[in-house]
Amino acid sequence: MPKDFEVYEINDFVLQQGATLRPAKLAFRTYGSLNSDKSNAIVYPTWYSGRHWENEWLIRPDQALNPDKYFIIVPNMFGNGVSSSPSNTPAPYDGPHFPQVTVYDQVRAQHQLVTAHFGISKLVAVLGWSMGAGQSFQWAVSYPEMVPKILPFCGSARTSEHNKVFLDAVKAAIEADGAFLNGEYREQPSKGLRAAARVYAGWGFSQAFYWQQLYKKMGYASLEDFLVGYWEGFFLDGRDANNLLAMLWTWRNGNVGNTPGFNGDHEAALASIRAKAIVMPAERDLYFPVDDEVYEVSKMPNAEFRVIPGVWGHFAGAGINAVDTAFINAALAELLDA
Amino acid sequence: MPKDFEVYEINDFVLQQGATLRPAKLAFRTYGSLNSDKSNAIVYPTWYSGRHWENEWLIRPDQALNPDKYFIIVPNMFGNGVSSSPSNTPAPYDGPHFPQVTVYDQVRAQHQLVTAHFGISKLVAVLGWSMGAGQSFQWAVSYPEMVPKILPFCGSARTSEHNKVFLDAVKAAIEADGAFLNGEYREQPSKGLRAAARVYAGWGFSQAFYWQQLYKKMGYASLEDFLVGYWEGFFLDGRDANNLLAMLWTWRNGNVGNTPGFNGDHEAALASIRAKAIVMPAERDLYFPVDDEVYEVSKMPNAEFRVIPGVWGHFAGAGINAVDTAFINAALAELLDA
Repeated sequence: MPKDFEVYEINDFVLQQGATLRPAKLAFRTYGSLNSDKSNAIVYPTWYSGRHWENEWLIRPDQALNPDKYFIIVPNMFGNGVSSSPSNTPAPYDGPHFPQVTVYDQVRAQHQLVTAHFGISKLVAVLGWSMGAGQSFQWAVSYPEMVPKILPFCGSARTSEHNKVFLDAVKAAIEADGAFLNGEYREQPSKGLRAAARVYAGWGFSQAFYWQQLYKKMGYASLEDFLVGYWEGFFLDGRDANNLLAMLWTWRNGNVGNTPGFNGDHEAALASIRAKAIVMPAERDLYFPVDDEVYEVSKMPNAEFRVIPGVWGHFAGAGINAVDTAFINAALAELLDA
Repeated sequence: MPKDFEVYEINDFVLQQGATLRPAKLAFRTYGSLNSDKSNAIVYPTWYSGRHWENEWLIRPDQALNPDKYFIIVPNMFGNGVSSSPSNTPAPYDGPHFPQVTVYDQVRAQHQLVTAHFGISKLVAVLGWSMGAGQSFQWAVSYPEMVPKILPFCGSARTSEHNKVFLDAVKAAIEADGAFLNGEYREQPSKGLRAAARVYAGWGFSQAFYWQQLYKKMGYASLEDFLVGYWEGFFLDGRDANNLLAMLWTWRNGNVGNTPGFNGDHEAALASIRAKAIVMPAERDLYFPVDDEVYEVSKMPNAEFRVIPGVWGHFAGAGINAVDTAFINAALAELLDA
């Protein structure tokens, strides 16, 4: 793991579900410089299993997320192995005993970093892919006065039931491995991780992506080469099984309606968002499908619905296809300039 | 297992991949009576993991597939636990040692049953759901002179790459279970089967099915009730792990182009079909999507493309939703009367 990040510690961080992290360690990296009036900060949270360095593809001087202009904070989600996670937390909250963290908790910790550590009182924007999109919605609901703009791409403000079915398959695949030992493993349950990778493979890209064999554009010689080289490699690249299950819980239970004050009312929470939003699902995303975001945008007072066209599915937002990246970048430039 | 079927034995049945079943046991059930000139027979093969009794929902005197009029033969696929399968074949071809059976082999055995056993030289039609659709296409390619009509629903003549990704996830989930023991288990690897069921759950019905909670119409109280009660129950209902993997190999390698004489040329095989066909994908099928059948129909000289509308996805063809069943029945009535 690169040692290119800082850690902000929050003593006695009480989670929404009642457990306490003593302390919660929020790892983050910043790009660019905070200006003197602290008015140029953007928060760009990580996604399921993603680490801060896996967000960097969108941060470039020749792109909208320009570190010469903005101070970009990438906080690592709890559970991702860099911030407090099953894999790095001492007993009694180690491994499978790591507590349940909600999206609300994730964003509350990030808010403390932004306000108490950096002294920032207002952000320029929050954006993110996938679970990072979920955190963008949550920022806008939790701290409406701080968040004038959001750009959530390939994600949702509430995890839908069909999305949960997908997640339950990933979970069941990991846990089916006898080596998982209810999370008390000494070695990673690699069969389970490889199986989870194969479950993910079918959902991550669209049917048309595979039909057109676009993995060859990514440098994979055959379907099996892609499934092993890309997908199994992805899941075996330092992605601890308990970490994956902890973040999966966070994702599965995502719902801005569970922000205190909303009593589970997802639509009321969406209606409370003041931020100008461009909500961008990918045309062929199989687990955050376009229909779901048509619905969510219809409940938001100041949101534009804009589809990322093409066949790359959910991974249109992963920074691996130049056309999709350009599309996201253009929307972000437009939002930041608005 | 009901004892309501017959078994046709084929001595020394040499498979396309080179192994020999000594004998191949083809279990089948018939509905109705063969008329004196043997001109009223319809073949209706089973689907992935399906048994003959699980096809019976479409066979009714008040429906198109009327046993008072037609002689309906339902052959069980090799691998399904009723015909020769890993679970019922003695050593040396038992369990994980069961040989690889192609769709071509499946249909060749059925052809022997129809011709040698029943003395039928021409069928009225062949139809089927899912892998049964694949066998319908194969019948039309292998025996064009015998098959004037086919109605393949929610299936394809060649298994697409994205479909293979889905299947590989099912396979990986079963094999991840330590109790699988490379197929040499004494007890079913139930964790792996349950995980496979959860993989399947996300693909079997559409996102909109779950969004609308249509499982409640099927009598399930909650999402988890549906995942356990319907899906895990489905996979634990006598569905042996090695059987599932054997049929999965058959499915994964499905391609009418592998019929002798076509040298792998899928399009040439489709073009050779003489049968009048109504090809019916389901509107929201996630693994046999509509686009794939638009393409296959475009290569067939005498085929109509007709979509089963609605949100039930692949399981529109499972006989569990009355609207979809009525749609399929109407198309079948039209085809049989043509």
